[in-house]
Amino acid sequence: MLSVEEALERLLDGLTSTEADEIPVADALGRVPAGGPILAAHDVPPFANSAMDGFALRAADGQTPRRLVGESRAGGSTAPTVEPGGAVRIMTGAPMPAGADSVVPLEEAAEDGGTVQVRRTPQLHAHVRDAGHDVRAGTAVPLATEPITPSVIGLLAAMGYAGLSVRRRPGVAILSTGDELVPAGVPLGPGQIHDANGPALAAAVVEAGGEAVLLRAAPDDAAEIERRVREGLASADMLVVSGGVSVGQHDHVRGVIERLGALDFWRIAVQPGKPLAFGRVEGRPVIGLPGNPVSALVTFELFVRPMLRRMLGLVGDGRTRVTARVEEALAKDPARRAYLRVRVCAAADGHHAVSAGGQASSQLLPLASANALLIVPEGMAVTQPGESYQAILLGSLQ
Amino acid sequence: MLSVEEALERLLDGLTSTEADEIPVADALGRVPAGGPILAAHDVPPFANSAMDGFALRAADGQTPRRLVGESRAGGSTAPTVEPGGAVRIMTGAPMPAGADSVVPLEEAAEDGGTVQVRRTPQLHAHVRDAGHDVRAGTAVPLATEPITPSVIGLLAAMGYAGLSVRRRPGVAILSTGDELVPAGVPLGPGQIHDANGPALAAAVVEAGGEAVLLRAAPDDAAEIERRVREGLASADMLVVSGGVSVGQHDHVRGVIERLGALDFWRIAVQPGKPLAFGRVEGRPVIGLPGNPVSALVTFELFVRPMLRRMLGLVGDGRTRVTARVEEALAKDPARRAYLRVRVCAAADGHHAVSAGGQASSQLLPLASANALLIVPEGMAVTQPGESYQAILLGSLQ
Repeated sequence: MLSVEEALERLLDGLTSTEADEIPVADALGRVPAGGPILAAHDVPPFANSAMDGFALRAADGQTPRRLVGESRAGGSTAPTVEPGGAVRIMTGAPMPAGADSVVPLEEAAEDGGTVQVRRTPQLHAHVRDAGHDVRAGTAVPLATEPITPSVIGLLAAMGYAGLSVRRRPGVAILSTGDELVPAGVPLGPGQIHDANGPALAAAVVEAGGEAVLLRAAPDDAAEIERRVREGLASADMLVVSGGVSVGQHDHVRGVIERLGALDFWRIAVQPGKPLAFGRVEGRPVIGLPGNPVSALVTFELFVRPMLRRMLGLVGDGRTRVTARVEEALAKDPARRAYLRVRVCAAADGHHAVSAGGQASSQLLPLASANALLIVPEGMAVTQPGESYQAILLGSLQ
Repeated sequence: MLSVEEALERLLDGLTSTEADEIPVADALGRVPAGGPILAAHDVPPFANSAMDGFALRAADGQTPRRLVGESRAGGSTAPTVEPGGAVRIMTGAPMPAGADSVVPLEEAAEDGGTVQVRRTPQLHAHVRDAGHDVRAGTAVPLATEPITPSVIGLLAAMGYAGLSVRRRPGVAILSTGDELVPAGVPLGPGQIHDANGPALAAAVVEAGGEAVLLRAAPDDAAEIERRVREGLASADMLVVSGGVSVGQHDHVRGVIERLGALDFWRIAVQPGKPLAFGRVEGRPVIGLPGNPVSALVTFELFVRPMLRRMLGLVGDGRTRVTARVEEALAKDPARRAYLRVRVCAAADGHHAVSAGGQASSQLLPLASANALLIVPEGMAVTQPGESYQAILLGSLQ
């Protein structure tokens, strides 16, 4: 059996980034920058301005009363030059008038009949923000290869950019297989179950930054599966199949991948999970996950999510990890690394993890109730009450 | 000055949830459940089935060779009843045939000419998953009031649900004010700056789970601002204005709120931030944030984000917090609680925080480079190198 790390290394090997897409900055939340550093075409801020409402004046005039010669307001016309002994009323963010080198805030000055009195000697440069004190014109501002945040959008807008280059979202076709599957919303006949993997894996693709193309579920029929695989790969960068990867005589996914391209089939020392079919068809990855929804979702998290992130230029799985203490003895297969479904909560003495329910791979409710996967290493048959383990947070934690 | 907690309590006071919207389960990623527990209309799984590929038989027959009487496959027609001495070939997930009470996996049996030999005495119920062993018919499954994950989507689909009830995303109108503002993409004239707050706050609304309505920026003109505020509130649950909330003679936002509804104006002991105008117009909250993008984004994070989450039925700000050690002396205003822009990284000995750049509220680049806000309490004038502070993660942390 491969270790989780070995399997992941093979899956990531040779994966390339999607091409760059030019999009409006206003649509860039969560997208990943693709275009290298952003050139500052002008200073940010573009001109020296006041940090306060007050009076712009010359510090060297000391405490001498000043003649009020005009006003500088944001976006207004140019204020008069401040000569020795002069002052200009100024608003926060308004341009420093020529000649002025200091701002005295309103609350430290008094104005009456065109004369401004200051309480104390102004400091040179006080309350003045220089042009370019945030970003200097000509600077190449590196954008971190991380999902774009609201403040990055603000920075790009402040620099005057209305568009930017981001990685195209990788398209992932999702195919559930099994004669027993009917879509949710359709009543079950005898021996039928609702397809959970299709919608769940499609959502996992979107959560990882990809675009999902959900195909109609395929019956356990080799020709039908082959047709669906071709259809999926025609419109996507990658295909994720669930079910039909086992050794039974009605499991056709491996045969189809072999016929259309090249197949690797691995057993991975992971619980839930274990069998994973991986191949390439016309250079595009095809991943066969177990049919069991818990196994499918956990192996997607561990193996497919990092693939999608790699195609976006991102590193790792993008999940926050914490160390969490367990008070239960939770059994697992000692031959495999387990990812147990738990609820982690933060307490004054650190993080605690509690089992989210039954740990059988056929139990989806506990996974749906979990907010973290607790990693219990190979070689252990049970968690040790009072011990701490690493946990992968599946979202944020309050 | 109000504390952050006092201000937040007043802002949240009386806020109600948005109404429920019925949407397809396939579109529910990240939405917040609104409809109470979900009734299990049928067992999940709907029938007892096999956890392995193998033979379904009667444990009481012990090691006696069995007559192979048929096959049970997933989604297939009904298999024959297993009488004493009989066995049925069975696939993973296929229904247990009547009469059978145990499954012997393929690798522990041998079949030849219609006779099945078992290696050891089968255990009663081995490798059998009972009907309803994940969710029993009639159970009211509580959905946590949390953003919906892929596995919740899978669970709902497995239960047969194609639709569910979620909170409508609160609509937030965003209005930037200032004569100096021009949109990104338009070249700057003298004294002009690009509007960063509009697109940045719109993205922050989306990030918090709301829907943004970005209004055209308004000049410093009371009548124009009033028109824009009315327009915004006509199509949104809440209005967020930035700029024009100060005491200068060209600051009209407070006057407009007063004229249209009721105004509260607070100074909050927060850095960056401090002044915040809050009012209600026709029962809808209007929040006036400082014009400075750093102050606007940080006060949005601290005050508006929790309001949006409250309207979605969520608690708190939904951000993960960590304790992070600082090795720098970062100055702040001792009268206010500071939220410093930092990069947090995880190391073997815990989390470390490094300043993301200048901490002036006019410097947006450091906020855009930060992945966390470091909370330094009131009463301190500087961070103590070697000490740890709480940090709000603005995303995930690898």
